[in-house]
Amino acid sequence: MAKEIPYKIYLDESEMPTAWYNLRADMKNKPAPLLNPATRQPCTAADLAPVFCEELVKQELDDTTPYFEIPQEIRDFYKMYRPSPLVRAYCLEKKLGTPAKIYYKFEGNNTSGSHKLNSAIAQAYYAKQQGLKGVTTETGAGQWGTALSMACSYFDLDCKVYMVKVSYEQKPFRREVMRTYGASVTPSPSTETAVGRKILEEHPGTTGSLGCAISEAVEKATTTEGYRYVLGSVLNQVLLHQSVIGLETKAALDKYGVKADIIIGCAGGGSNLGGLIAPFMGEKLRGEADYRIIAVEPASCPSLTRGKFAYDFCDTGKVCPLAKMYTLGCDFIPAPNHAGGLRYHGMSSTLSQLYADGLMEATSVTQTKVFEAAEYFARVEGILPAPESSHAIRVAIDEALKCKETGEEKTIVFGLTGTGYFDMVAYEKYNDGKMNDYIPTDEELAESLKKLP
Amino acid sequence: MAKEIPYKIYLDESEMPTAWYNLRADMKNKPAPLLNPATRQPCTAADLAPVFCEELVKQELDDTTPYFEIPQEIRDFYKMYRPSPLVRAYCLEKKLGTPAKIYYKFEGNNTSGSHKLNSAIAQAYYAKQQGLKGVTTETGAGQWGTALSMACSYFDLDCKVYMVKVSYEQKPFRREVMRTYGASVTPSPSTETAVGRKILEEHPGTTGSLGCAISEAVEKATTTEGYRYVLGSVLNQVLLHQSVIGLETKAALDKYGVKADIIIGCAGGGSNLGGLIAPFMGEKLRGEADYRIIAVEPASCPSLTRGKFAYDFCDTGKVCPLAKMYTLGCDFIPAPNHAGGLRYHGMSSTLSQLYADGLMEATSVTQTKVFEAAEYFARVEGILPAPESSHAIRVAIDEALKCKETGEEKTIVFGLTGTGYFDMVAYEKYNDGKMNDYIPTDEELAESLKKLP
Repeated sequence: MAKEIPYKIYLDESEMPTAWYNLRADMKNKPAPLLNPATRQPCTAADLAPVFCEELVKQELDDTTPYFEIPQEIRDFYKMYRPSPLVRAYCLEKKLGTPAKIYYKFEGNNTSGSHKLNSAIAQAYYAKQQGLKGVTTETGAGQWGTALSMACSYFDLDCKVYMVKVSYEQKPFRREVMRTYGASVTPSPSTETAVGRKILEEHPGTTGSLGCAISEAVEKATTTEGYRYVLGSVLNQVLLHQSVIGLETKAALDKYGVKADIIIGCAGGGSNLGGLIAPFMGEKLRGEADYRIIAVEPASCPSLTRGKFAYDFCDTGKVCPLAKMYTLGCDFIPAPNHAGGLRYHGMSSTLSQLYADGLMEATSVTQTKVFEAAEYFARVEGILPAPESSHAIRVAIDEALKCKETGEEKTIVFGLTGTGYFDMVAYEKYNDGKMNDYIPTDEELAESLKKLP
Repeated sequence: MAKEIPYKIYLDESEMPTAWYNLRADMKNKPAPLLNPATRQPCTAADLAPVFCEELVKQELDDTTPYFEIPQEIRDFYKMYRPSPLVRAYCLEKKLGTPAKIYYKFEGNNTSGSHKLNSAIAQAYYAKQQGLKGVTTETGAGQWGTALSMACSYFDLDCKVYMVKVSYEQKPFRREVMRTYGASVTPSPSTETAVGRKILEEHPGTTGSLGCAISEAVEKATTTEGYRYVLGSVLNQVLLHQSVIGLETKAALDKYGVKADIIIGCAGGGSNLGGLIAPFMGEKLRGEADYRIIAVEPASCPSLTRGKFAYDFCDTGKVCPLAKMYTLGCDFIPAPNHAGGLRYHGMSSTLSQLYADGLMEATSVTQTKVFEAAEYFARVEGILPAPESSHAIRVAIDEALKCKETGEEKTIVFGLTGTGYFDMVAYEKYNDGKMNDYIPTDEELAESLKKLP
């Protein structure tokens, strides 16, 4: 007889993963290599060393080693907020009246409020190991910056965050959490860097962009002794660290003899989705099991569903390497959307390759439908979700409602990446009926894609 | 050999308490009864019925039944966010270099961000059972209002919250969370009630007070068909529901064969402290075990440490019953302090009686010392604590440092009642060195206490 499933499945600490899983090792078609922006040749370790920590460069470039041991210090930190619960959404199932079984992996139970901490602590650890003084990064919505501040504080590293100016001004509480963890937070563009000064001169009064903040953070890291740059998504190393999400999810399902049918995650740069699906996709690649895997992106920034699979710059400033990925063009500026973590023009090259190979699906949803699902979920399951996470909730609900029509008892698993405490301005707009659903026209996208390098 | 203690002890769902523990049943000196404000005679069930739900009135007045079964519907809701973890603070111990063993019961892992949900869901359940249409309440800092909104949304009850006007304006995000859960939120004083209109007439431009908001909520409940009033602290019924905190804590400690030496909790109206200590105090009262139990209050609002044990009104408007408690006088207006949840002039009559009988200690701490501990804790343990909870952290750290001096390996358990996401204005003041430590003078307190009824 099958064991009764509790509301929340917590693994024991002894059941936590001891190694990260490198999905690329099982891919027949490997993701294309990063290209050096100057030479347009595949990046070497030497190319990346001035920007990233040595150990992280190794992880970035290694597409054959299937497992990387998680250092004990990181495992100890993980124990402060992991394992995260795999929740059986009994109340949601009941309210929807669906025969589907719904599970979600909740990554919001830590102070950074999202899954970002899983990679932040790893990157901070390797920086410390290398004897560095500090790291620089950019942040938009602030989840990544918060996570990195926590991680640096734990390892006594300096943390320098360039925060997109509009967010710096509109989200003072996010900024303050970072300061509480000892980070220095600078509104970007700033006069601290050459690229910042240049942008301010050309566009006085600009409120900044993620692309500009990345350029400032990279410049600061490469021009300051003992510093390196760190990034919260897109890169292979980040997906590697985030595999802890999927590994725990799979271990929890296996423990109760549950087999997933559909796995759903929101997709911006790909950090959460890549981590959640890793071990499931691995089984699929090795022919051991089959799953429907669905990436959900905002209709306002639809890189997988409407972008082009091509080499493009990872940043708007065009100082970073080029990646082969589904992209809307690195000059594409998505319309204001409250899911700041999903407003990225491209997509992890690993996920892009899997999508190109037909191994996963992608869909896009509009903002109002996302918040409708978010509020419904909050009231039924008691967790106030982040706008990003709510993209996955929307599609999970839609799939569960399809099961209601067909009577199928499918098992749906989705990633609930974080909480929405710092997104109440967005909820307010939704509650007041003032939310917009902007979708770029074909002409706009064509215009942006024309400029691909 | 003793089992190795994990970082976080999660009970299985099957180990969760099935009944609340009524500490009063084991008290030889029972807390004094509430008095009817009109007759000054002990309140009867009939006196309280127009204000509170029937079942809650029973719980309020019953000081002999030791256990009340938790209804299945409430236990199901508890499973969405409970059991809460009992965390072994390994990192804090290491950083302090103390031989003490430190544990904290973390109640912030739910969307309301605090322990308040434990009683909110119970009170909403009984209101629903009675066939009511809705409930009214007041909220200051907003934790209680948020918790009640979530609970009412779950049971499809109307929820009407009077929010102290200054908080309504300064904490728009708190207000928005409540609205997201479907509550109606009114800044108090308002023109919706007679008492509100009267106050506005006498004090135009006032930013409100908790006492005034209580008066409005009570008036609204008693003058609207199908409504009752609910309260998040001070009352016996609330302490009863909150005993789930202590019962889980004790079960988790027992499971690993750990015996606490010192138990520490912050104390405003007493809901968290009363719940945390209940089963431990029960053992102490029955002579089965001994514990040092410490209540921590803000130096700006020191009811136990500097107040008088006497009958006083529970609200500033003097429409509510009188309780015998340690009080600073119901007209006492505490100086601005960022721990809004601790700014109450009195203290639960149960805790007051225990303190009067020498069964527990009390101490007070200043605001800056509290935030110093909060930030230290956040950086070491990764959880951003609420200002209220940080009062307990301060004293736990101080006790652990004493152990460092003496070499004693004491086991310290404290209550971490909630998270500080909505308190970043306070953290900002602390980070900018602009925090004040106001302590009322003896003359001020004497003045306020002179007016006791």
